[in-house]
Amino acid sequence: MQAYVMPLGCKSIDDLKLVERPDPQPGPGQVVVRVRAVSLNYRDQAAVTGNYFQQADRDTVPCSDGAGEVIAVGEGVRTLKVGDKVAGTFSQPDPAGPAGGPPLPMGLPLDGMLAQLVLMHEVGAIKLPRGYSFEEGACLPCAGVTAWNCLFGVGRPIRPGDTVLVLGSGGVSVWALQLAKAAGCRVVATTSRDSKAQRLQALGASDVINYTTHEKWDDEVMRVTGGRGVDCVVEVGGQGTLQRSMNSLARGGKVGLIGVLTKGSSNPHTLMMKGGSLHGIFVGDRTLFEQLNAAIDANGIKPVIDQVFPFAQAKDAFHHQASGDFMGKVVIQV
Amino acid sequence: MQAYVMPLGCKSIDDLKLVERPDPQPGPGQVVVRVRAVSLNYRDQAAVTGNYFQQADRDTVPCSDGAGEVIAVGEGVRTLKVGDKVAGTFSQPDPAGPAGGPPLPMGLPLDGMLAQLVLMHEVGAIKLPRGYSFEEGACLPCAGVTAWNCLFGVGRPIRPGDTVLVLGSGGVSVWALQLAKAAGCRVVATTSRDSKAQRLQALGASDVINYTTHEKWDDEVMRVTGGRGVDCVVEVGGQGTLQRSMNSLARGGKVGLIGVLTKGSSNPHTLMMKGGSLHGIFVGDRTLFEQLNAAIDANGIKPVIDQVFPFAQAKDAFHHQASGDFMGKVVIQV
Amino acid sequence: MQAYVMPLGCKSIDDLKLVERPDPQPGPGQVVVRVRAVSLNYRDQAAVTGNYFQQADRDTVPCSDGAGEVIAVGEGVRTLKVGDKVAGTFSQPDPAGPAGGPPLPMGLPLDGMLAQLVLMHEVGAIKLPRGYSFEEGACLPCAGVTAWNCLFGVGRPIRPGDTVLVLGSGGVSVWALQLAKAAGCRVVATTSRDSKAQRLQALGASDVINYTTHEKWDDEVMRVTGGRGVDCVVEVGGQGTLQRSMNSLARGGKVGLIGVLTKGSSNPHTLMMKGGSLHGIFVGDRTLFEQLNAAIDANGIKPVIDQVFPFAQAKDAFHHQASGDFMGKVVIQV
Amino acid sequence: MQAYVMPLGCKSIDDLKLVERPDPQPGPGQVVVRVRAVSLNYRDQAAVTGNYFQQADRDTVPCSDGAGEVIAVGEGVRTLKVGDKVAGTFSQPDPAGPAGGPPLPMGLPLDGMLAQLVLMHEVGAIKLPRGYSFEEGACLPCAGVTAWNCLFGVGRPIRPGDTVLVLGSGGVSVWALQLAKAAGCRVVATTSRDSKAQRLQALGASDVINYTTHEKWDDEVMRVTGGRGVDCVVEVGGQGTLQRSMNSLARGGKVGLIGVLTKGSSNPHTLMMKGGSLHGIFVGDRTLFEQLNAAIDANGIKPVIDQVFPFAQAKDAFHHQASGDFMGKVVIQV
Repeated sequence: MQAYVMPLGCKSIDDLKLVERPDPQPGPGQVVVRVRAVSLNYRDQAAVTGNYFQQADRDTVPCSDGAGEVIAVGEGVRTLKVGDKVAGTFSQPDPAGPAGGPPLPMGLPLDGMLAQLVLMHEVGAIKLPRGYSFEEGACLPCAGVTAWNCLFGVGRPIRPGDTVLVLGSGGVSVWALQLAKAAGCRVVATTSRDSKAQRLQALGASDVINYTTHEKWDDEVMRVTGGRGVDCVVEVGGQGTLQRSMNSLARGGKVGLIGVLTKGSSNPHTLMMKGGSLHGIFVGDRTLFEQLNAAIDANGIKPVIDQVFPFAQAKDAFHHQASGDFMGKVVIQV
Repeated sequence: MQAYVMPLGCKSIDDLKLVERPDPQPGPGQVVVRVRAVSLNYRDQAAVTGNYFQQADRDTVPCSDGAGEVIAVGEGVRTLKVGDKVAGTFSQPDPAGPAGGPPLPMGLPLDGMLAQLVLMHEVGAIKLPRGYSFEEGACLPCAGVTAWNCLFGVGRPIRPGDTVLVLGSGGVSVWALQLAKAAGCRVVATTSRDSKAQRLQALGASDVINYTTHEKWDDEVMRVTGGRGVDCVVEVGGQGTLQRSMNSLARGGKVGLIGVLTKGSSNPHTLMMKGGSLHGIFVGDRTLFEQLNAAIDANGIKPVIDQVFPFAQAKDAFHHQASGDFMGKVVIQV
Repeated sequence: MQAYVMPLGCKSIDDLKLVERPDPQPGPGQVVVRVRAVSLNYRDQAAVTGNYFQQADRDTVPCSDGAGEVIAVGEGVRTLKVGDKVAGTFSQPDPAGPAGGPPLPMGLPLDGMLAQLVLMHEVGAIKLPRGYSFEEGACLPCAGVTAWNCLFGVGRPIRPGDTVLVLGSGGVSVWALQLAKAAGCRVVATTSRDSKAQRLQALGASDVINYTTHEKWDDEVMRVTGGRGVDCVVEVGGQGTLQRSMNSLARGGKVGLIGVLTKGSSNPHTLMMKGGSLHGIFVGDRTLFEQLNAAIDANGIKPVIDQVFPFAQAKDAFHHQASGDFMGKVVIQV
Repeated sequence: MQAYVMPLGCKSIDDLKLVERPDPQPGPGQVVVRVRAVSLNYRDQAAVTGNYFQQADRDTVPCSDGAGEVIAVGEGVRTLKVGDKVAGTFSQPDPAGPAGGPPLPMGLPLDGMLAQLVLMHEVGAIKLPRGYSFEEGACLPCAGVTAWNCLFGVGRPIRPGDTVLVLGSGGVSVWALQLAKAAGCRVVATTSRDSKAQRLQALGASDVINYTTHEKWDDEVMRVTGGRGVDCVVEVGGQGTLQRSMNSLARGGKVGLIGVLTKGSSNPHTLMMKGGSLHGIFVGDRTLFEQLNAAIDANGIKPVIDQVFPFAQAKDAFHHQASGDFMGKVVIQV
């Protein structure tokens, strides 16, 4: 089978190599998935360009997020059968790891999804929501589950009447916007481009703040919320935005710390007068994934897919993601 | 000013008397509200007909739920001013009570809202949601807050993807249906009349079960949920329906105990195999009321009002409520 | 190896038979445990005497709770090694069951612990707390985890300053007493024998109520709590005690429904005026078991063992348990 | 009556002035308290030395924490009577403030407790725990409630078996140590002086780390917890310690942000890999105070009082607090 790999010491998208690897065989409790679509996350790009905090110690297949069809099941598999349409969970039991080790992310350090065939443990594969295509299913594991975790997993779960702030229009932010609207919340979004503002409003954002024209966008958040602030910030920006995110909180609000895109400094003691909280989020477990899928089923939510690239043009997909000029998810068909 | 009273020993709707009472004057911390609309709850009817578990020890103005305009404020009032449009909270500090006593329900034992002027403590009046008429505001205090409490106050708050079961189409049940839909849930409803089934579906119920044609309606709930059951039951029926409500639960689900309409027996040990829970609900406090109003503001929810009666025909309103042949709320203009 | 079995249709303790069975071999993910001690629960006795709600469909080894030493590990086992001292969890993955089935209790329907060798899945065995003997470890799985779940798993977790009510002095109740004291709570206990009252007080109960001399023991609970009631009831009695348990609650208190020992009737609407809740408890999962062990380690808690019987006298152990004249746990050495 | 004031622009302890002020008279809902003892917090010292983030706009009586006896009650007071022994809550309704304003801290901006007579609103005074002296009661409002809030108010409440890390031996840290021990937790403490280490161990700390000899005290925390880390950090140090506090967390652990004593920088993204959280804490409300008192009653906890100064030597008390060479609370008798 064919797969892309990040060669040892990979530093750029153009270093990605298409290679031939042996077809995997399922061991006890494992399944083989014929991958049909992969979606990209910022983390995948950071891994490929050598900017992730971890480095691979061998050639590694990139990408944590993908969906496909089960084509073989190993001994003792109880919950899946050949033909099931599944997405992989972001973290998987490490098949070669030390005894008792924790689950590890696909795409680094484990081999990822940008391959024709992938071996997963049964507990690391989850059936797609009703009516989902493989392209749509590939958007769930990292971005969808992270957004769900931020809204419903950490701190007080959001509820109708809350206001949620999403930063920008990447995969996590757009998922969070859609899920928060489904939950009866008001959503405020930031963006750097007026063209995206309209699309964010069409998805349900009541207010979109252009952070290039409003450098102090936290002041704008307070203004549009009548001085109250927001109940939840989906913080994908990192240290460069965190201080303004905390400034944007209402009393008792929460910030989900997801991103590390920007540099800067912050002082979390801003939280003291607001009784606010920060929550570190690293995707989420299978239980959260199942909750997300139930929410999708009940509300008919579909992911926002910016563009779909063929397998042969996977590098173009990475370059498009790197440009920042996209909205929602960039997908590769396999 | 004029008010209806339940004379001591009141046993029927026709015993209600329209009387003249002195206009109230606000003491420290109090406001006078010019009542403009009142809505009826099953509890009001039970009080008037002598079927409530408590009896009045004097002529008492009935009805817990109403809305109007502040026309006078007492010394030290900080949060309200003349002209504010408010609803009263279900329970109020007892102005004549022993020191340190708990808040008490309006309409019994405290005088209620079916009067032209009502004295409230500042903390017992809350501003109406944006764009609400007095008739709509009068539907909030008991039915709206109770439904909110059941969904979001007790046990695990509902979230998108949950399934909620509402029994019948009274005030609490219809509020719960609307709020659960706004929260991204699936809603299953029961009813005894096919004519109501259509209206419940129009409000968003995915499935409506006629409990006269399906006596074992819990089996139907399990069937339409694919054998899984529901995450939350809004239990307004009492002992006569409680066993089937518990039977309808999914693993880890909750039942909010609200009603006492029917007789029967139940064995809560049904909860053991399901890891379920029952939660006693007696309306809810001011904080829940404020959350409800925020949810209404964000989602533009309006109460379902069955019929509006003039003050002079207040008894007709009670008779209509007693017939059971209504949906949502019965309102009296004052 | 030797094991006791409940023959098909077993109706009494004296029907138990000691039989020879083949030594088990570990499959993938499984371990073989050399059982060293078993403890009895009311459920075991109910199963043996045909009074459990389920019936076996074959000769079945009784008893859910035991501890021993790992003597063999199967392929792929990551967290256990030969020599580890473990207790089994109450529920185990069903080795012969249908695909995707839930974990099932040992002792019925799965074969239980009253055997020299037992096959467990890796996830169904958990290391003993520091310094625990096998006899002590055998007291954990059902009684200890159930008590922990009632206090910390369902509803609001208890905290210092809460008052907890325990009924009688069986295994769950004594564990709950010890754990609630370790958590800084006040504990009120009921008993039928003055001799036990002293032992309950020695374990930390501030008040012991004799329910034979005080039939209305709920009135006594209210009296000793100054009319406030308790925050948590560990309800092992069943329908015969449930009404008084609910009557004993403070505002916002919770009842953990554990037992089915007695008959009677109850009306959970008592919960409405108290804002109380009932929670069905069926032991608890591995996560709760690990929390319990951490609490034991930090506080040096040891179970109260009433009496230890040799394997050959297992029937005597059952008869002793059936007499009701014991406190804490009855143990069988294997 | 006599009171100390911080004159406008107060910059040092020696600027404090003893002045004569008119005896207060209780308005509606208010009580007059004859203050008998005051305790000092770091915040009081910061206010007096001009290092607090807020400045007074008039001569202000310092100190948030005190206890005394009710000597007069105003109209409508329901829950207190002359002779009641009370502590004030940290925040009080602002008697002169704009309508609907939030409660404000005593000692700045409101006049504080270092006076012979103090006016409080009824809801701002709370009865002392059983058997508490005024000196002990004066230790509750800020330090005790803050510690309680950190352990039980924010995030997941601690439970038996958790490990709690307290920094140093100031008022909040010693309360947290005592309360966490009462709750069945293990406690790790840091200190700069070996003499204090022994006293911290005597209070129940299992491990005391000298942070002058172990600059990387977070490594020590990980070592003594077997590489697991702690479930809760009572973070009184500020930016200078926050990074190491986050490094000390176990998976899913929480940090309560309380202090601002030291400078430095931190990156909360440390929380991402741990799934940890930071919670801003600014003392706590009346409900938490009542929970604290219940915990004290049930466990007989007494505050650790370092030294008691007479009213005439109040400045000496401030200087002692400023030296850092104390443990627990510094108290002034009034």
